[in-house]
Amino acid sequence: MTISEKLTAIQQKNQSRLCIGLDTEIAKLPASLKSRPESIFEFNKAIIEATFNHVCAYKINFAFYEQYGAEGMEALRKSLECIPTNIVTIADAKRGDIGNTSRAYAISIFEEMNFDAITVSPYMGKDSIEPFLEYENKIVFVLALTSNPGSADFQRLISDGKPIYRHVVETAQTWKCNATLGFVVGATHPTEVEEIRTYSPNSIFLIPGIGTQGGDTKATMAANGNAPAIVNVSRAILYASSGDDFESKAREQAEFYNKEIGM
Amino acid sequence: MTISEKLTAIQQKNQSRLCIGLDTEIAKLPASLKSRPESIFEFNKAIIEATFNHVCAYKINFAFYEQYGAEGMEALRKSLECIPTNIVTIADAKRGDIGNTSRAYAISIFEEMNFDAITVSPYMGKDSIEPFLEYENKIVFVLALTSNPGSADFQRLISDGKPIYRHVVETAQTWKCNATLGFVVGATHPTEVEEIRTYSPNSIFLIPGIGTQGGDTKATMAANGNAPAIVNVSRAILYASSGDDFESKAREQAEFYNKEIGM
Repeated sequence: MTISEKLTAIQQKNQSRLCIGLDTEIAKLPASLKSRPESIFEFNKAIIEATFNHVCAYKINFAFYEQYGAEGMEALRKSLECIPTNIVTIADAKRGDIGNTSRAYAISIFEEMNFDAITVSPYMGKDSIEPFLEYENKIVFVLALTSNPGSADFQRLISDGKPIYRHVVETAQTWKCNATLGFVVGATHPTEVEEIRTYSPNSIFLIPGIGTQGGDTKATMAANGNAPAIVNVSRAILYASSGDDFESKAREQAEFYNKEIGM
Repeated sequence: MTISEKLTAIQQKNQSRLCIGLDTEIAKLPASLKSRPESIFEFNKAIIEATFNHVCAYKINFAFYEQYGAEGMEALRKSLECIPTNIVTIADAKRGDIGNTSRAYAISIFEEMNFDAITVSPYMGKDSIEPFLEYENKIVFVLALTSNPGSADFQRLISDGKPIYRHVVETAQTWKCNATLGFVVGATHPTEVEEIRTYSPNSIFLIPGIGTQGGDTKATMAANGNAPAIVNVSRAILYASSGDDFESKAREQAEFYNKEIGM
């Protein structure tokens, strides 16, 4: 089964394009879970068990685990093992470096940890992303137009009549690619989602920015149409309740966002 | 002592602007060191002991450690502890994410691991870098014009008459900054080192690309002049010999590059 088939199968089975971002922070855990690194895994396990029928993917952002050192990374590994094998796993690491270094990052994410997908930063260009693109049956999401305010600083600069993010999307599509190429496009920019679909109609978009970041779900999904998409929500699901009912509230919010996103 | 004073003190003491990049890979270790993750630390320790009188900084690139999983990260931590406290330590991690996520990366690198400096990617703009800039007595090196071939893909695109890397340098210099702001500018672009110095005369440049990458040391240092700089060499020193004499050969190469770079 190819990675595209895996994604389609789980999206059909769960009738979901929702991805939950496991951006777990000790300070935000429910009081019932003690505030120690081991709690991160316990919390993630509970969230996964409560929501796995309502998602197509889980996204693990490395920052939240690296901040707790070795114990944090152990929690990341154990959480990854908890994710049912038919669900797509995304390493949200935004890596990118010179060629021989990106190759080491690719080994880390795709071989050592066996994630299905990664996010990468395009600033350093072709040879910084090529080592990821060599892997068959992996998805490489290149940052295009991110969901944050700072996306306006450099991604929207105009060169040769086109914004930088368009250069990134068009250029990346010319690179040799054994993997499946995707792009990160924030739900805070529905107009640009529609625009980017004109020159990248079939690539998979990883769409963050819904929930706490305030992206417009309906407008974004209308702009994306039926093209392949994975839509991420993190904090609005994870921290739907800080009480003992956090699992049922997370499930409710997962169902809510899944319905909002639609199929 | 501020971080700038720390850098100046070690550069004066060792008469060196050389940084050694600990890009250690098991496959490249001398035969005398067995090929297992523990060897990474043993190798780094030997390299540090052989060279610490000839450098101002050590740079640890996270990719090479992450590829070996938890054991690799343990080797990173132990290597970091081996570095004499008067030498500047640089986390070459090229991190950058939305605000709350970059904050977690900053905690990881500056608090949990206590590095003196980090490299960050500017693609996601101001709020992706601000959390790092809040730390006093740390150096934040923003990628400007990197040493690799892919630097031509997006960093050199022209917007409003100026290349993107110039937008990055000029814009970053307008951001509120408690840390010391620096930039990564590759030694493979001596002409641009001179150009960037016209609008960033006093910031610290982290200059990679010398040695295996073929950067022009003399031209680069002439272009930089007396402005603050840390010049990195990795593979050409680490793997100067694959035999039992790897320590003495590494020291020889460190002395050679230190002399080439000059003060």
